[in-house]
Amino acid sequence: MSASDRPLLSNARSDRVREVSALGRRSARARSGRFLVEGPQAVRELLRYAGGHTRALYVTAEAGRRHAEILDAAREAEVPTWMCTDEVLSAMADTGSPQGVLAVAEQVDVPLDQALDAVGPRDFAVVLTHVRDPGNAGTVLRGASAFGAAAVLLSAASVDVHHPKVVRSTVGALFHLPVSVGTPVQELLEACRARGIRLLAADGAGEVPLPDADLGGPHAWVLGNEAWGMPADVLAACDVGVSIPIERAESLNLAMAATVCLHASAAASTPGP
Amino acid sequence: MSASDRPLLSNARSDRVREVSALGRRSARARSGRFLVEGPQAVRELLRYAGGHTRALYVTAEAGRRHAEILDAAREAEVPTWMCTDEVLSAMADTGSPQGVLAVAEQVDVPLDQALDAVGPRDFAVVLTHVRDPGNAGTVLRGASAFGAAAVLLSAASVDVHHPKVVRSTVGALFHLPVSVGTPVQELLEACRARGIRLLAADGAGEVPLPDADLGGPHAWVLGNEAWGMPADVLAACDVGVSIPIERAESLNLAMAATVCLHASAAASTPGP
Repeated sequence: MSASDRPLLSNARSDRVREVSALGRRSARARSGRFLVEGPQAVRELLRYAGGHTRALYVTAEAGRRHAEILDAAREAEVPTWMCTDEVLSAMADTGSPQGVLAVAEQVDVPLDQALDAVGPRDFAVVLTHVRDPGNAGTVLRGASAFGAAAVLLSAASVDVHHPKVVRSTVGALFHLPVSVGTPVQELLEACRARGIRLLAADGAGEVPLPDADLGGPHAWVLGNEAWGMPADVLAACDVGVSIPIERAESLNLAMAATVCLHASAAASTPGP
Repeated sequence: MSASDRPLLSNARSDRVREVSALGRRSARARSGRFLVEGPQAVRELLRYAGGHTRALYVTAEAGRRHAEILDAAREAEVPTWMCTDEVLSAMADTGSPQGVLAVAEQVDVPLDQALDAVGPRDFAVVLTHVRDPGNAGTVLRGASAFGAAAVLLSAASVDVHHPKVVRSTVGALFHLPVSVGTPVQELLEACRARGIRLLAADGAGEVPLPDADLGGPHAWVLGNEAWGMPADVLAACDVGVSIPIERAESLNLAMAATVCLHASAAASTPGP
């Protein structure tokens, strides 16, 4: 079926448009179990890594011409596809400029046990607790994907990983590795420990400097809130607090600290020259 | 002089307010040689590291009570201080919420030679070229400060380092180390080479993986545009292209890549255990 044969959605006030745009809100996501994926790069990664989760694809005529490979991938994955006017696409999107491409998908998180199953004896994982800023959470997910983390576990007290801003800032990383959400943090840490995963708290006041940290076996980086770190009981439940040696205190933000820690784990798991 | 003795600015349409708020625009900054520093943390760092550059401090009564140490530091540095209504402070600020504290300062960049003088035989510097996003530039500056870079050099084709968004996202790092701006990039690279500073291009396609890169002598990380890296002639002018080994291509953004590279230089310059 060519683009011109497809039904064209042109009514920005239709029930369908309202239903899609409602997914910008947490309540609608919780009710439907679905979420928004916006922009060509994120949608491309969705179709590639989680095509079976995709329920619908919406594209403008111009974006459809520019990103023919997305329409091909959607056809391959048997994803229902609609052509839309610019107005309809804008009304559906959470962001101002999804560059003419938007998908609705089933939420991609997996049960905690399934995520932990992915953590092998030479692997590392990432635990996010009390992280509230969508951009920071997204950047950490992106780093987790880049540096080959085996799983990302978000505690109950964290930003919603299916929030459009998180999805956008992961640029597809959300679909690259198992992500688990919603477990209370102490339960989460206990589940890691029960599997022999050592817990390293990334903490500006941590007693072990990063170059001295043991990154040999299965371990998880525990990352806390961007402003005040993590609660004392979370810190106490970790095996060790690890700090990054820096010239000036408080000068790294959460995403930067996470990037350095995850890179160190990736480097440690790479066989030397 | 106590807060209550100070003159209170209450007219949001006064010439002074207009003059201050104009510094949100590049043209006004270029004309006056001044810029805006917003929020208590950035202003605290300004007064501490570049107090002599500060021309005026504006605070609301509430912020003055909360941050008495800022008023003390301003008095110490003989900075003229005005109490303002919330309305006046909002009208002056580029951001919606400068948390009641705003300063006007002389621009802090230094001549290129002076910045290069700061790069000793065991030091490293950062060169930014064609970086356009204020948040990215600010994060790189923050990383440069955290990891002890000796200087930051921005080429002529880069974002204005005195842009309020850059200043905000450096959270004071702009005042921690010499920053030079405005030199055409090839001239900048040539000046580094003339001083024996090796040029390492941070490049996703770089032929040397980061763990194999020689970070021993004086060197500079050359960081390019967030979307398309750096022009071929800039890459060619560098001594070596260095890539960060990652699981998936294109999965690190500029700020993350810079963080990893600067951290590696900091770790290399730290004496081993």
